[in-house]
Amino acid sequence: MDARSITGRIVLQQCIGAKLQVKPLCENSPAEYVEIGRGVVAYVCFMKGANSDTVGKMISMITSIKLSRNGNGLLVSVLDLPGSIMVVPQGCLGGKLKGKRMQYHGNIDKLEGLKLYESLTLGCCNALPADEGVTCKYGTYGNLQVLKVDTDGPYMHTIDIT
Amino acid sequence: MDARSITGRIVLQQCIGAKLQVKPLCENSPAEYVEIGRGVVAYVCFMKGANSDTVGKMISMITSIKLSRNGNGLLVSVLDLPGSIMVVPQGCLGGKLKGKRMQYHGNIDKLEGLKLYESLTLGCCNALPADEGVTCKYGTYGNLQVLKVDTDGPYMHTIDIT
Repeated sequence: MDARSITGRIVLQQCIGAKLQVKPLCENSPAEYVEIGRGVVAYVCFMKGANSDTVGKMISMITSIKLSRNGNGLLVSVLDLPGSIMVVPQGCLGGKLKGKRMQYHGNIDKLEGLKLYESLTLGCCNALPADEGVTCKYGTYGNLQVLKVDTDGPYMHTIDIT
Repeated sequence: MDARSITGRIVLQQCIGAKLQVKPLCENSPAEYVEIGRGVVAYVCFMKGANSDTVGKMISMITSIKLSRNGNGLLVSVLDLPGSIMVVPQGCLGGKLKGKRMQYHGNIDKLEGLKLYESLTLGCCNALPADEGVTCKYGTYGNLQVLKVDTDGPYMHTIDIT
């Protein structure tokens, strides 16, 4: 695979629960958080060249890859579990090691990335069934992702989108 | 990069704290856990062709890449922080997507992987300063990694070792 053709990267972790800060503590207002129960935490990063096709592939992968173990011990998708989804923007996943530091020259422009991110979170949220007690939450693009994850096995996978 | 030449993969997350099960609950004994405070969680996977060279590179990367923010806001290595290290064996990182399922044909043989893992954890633990109040903990190879991670920004990076 040609490294230049990678337009996005996702890391998927299975969780029992996850809690993410979406607004940091300010002088006049407390920090705000979102939470999910059992489901998947999807860390996402867009690279240069990412477009709506990249977003579509990411939504399909997050929602349909069979990485969640159901009550019978079978691997099913988060939609079939059914479980919740938490999307965490994580631009540093695009980092490339140079000496002892990471560089991010392959990452998409921030504003472009924000648009794709909004489209991605909307797509993930729309994909979830409305009436199954599951939920879709996501972090604020560009913020520090203050995050707690609780797993009974993260069963972690990295996937590059080309 | 030729995908066949990748001999290992690590995912690094910065943490405020992490707690990992190293022995599951049995009839006569409670589950056992290890914990670290601020530092790095390193998820590791060995692929076919991994050897002591792969292990050496992994130890060097985990301990010396500048991904930890110190009190002055500067990026330093976990050794220079100084912070703690938790190594989590995560063979599924070697997975490759095939349809809607992950396949693991590129992963190393389990027994070979265990030897490399033991060498890796020993190397990480020996690299940490003995008297700075930091610690090195690691999961049981082959077990389910029941794990809680608490971060003020996972600052997550994936690195392939070739």
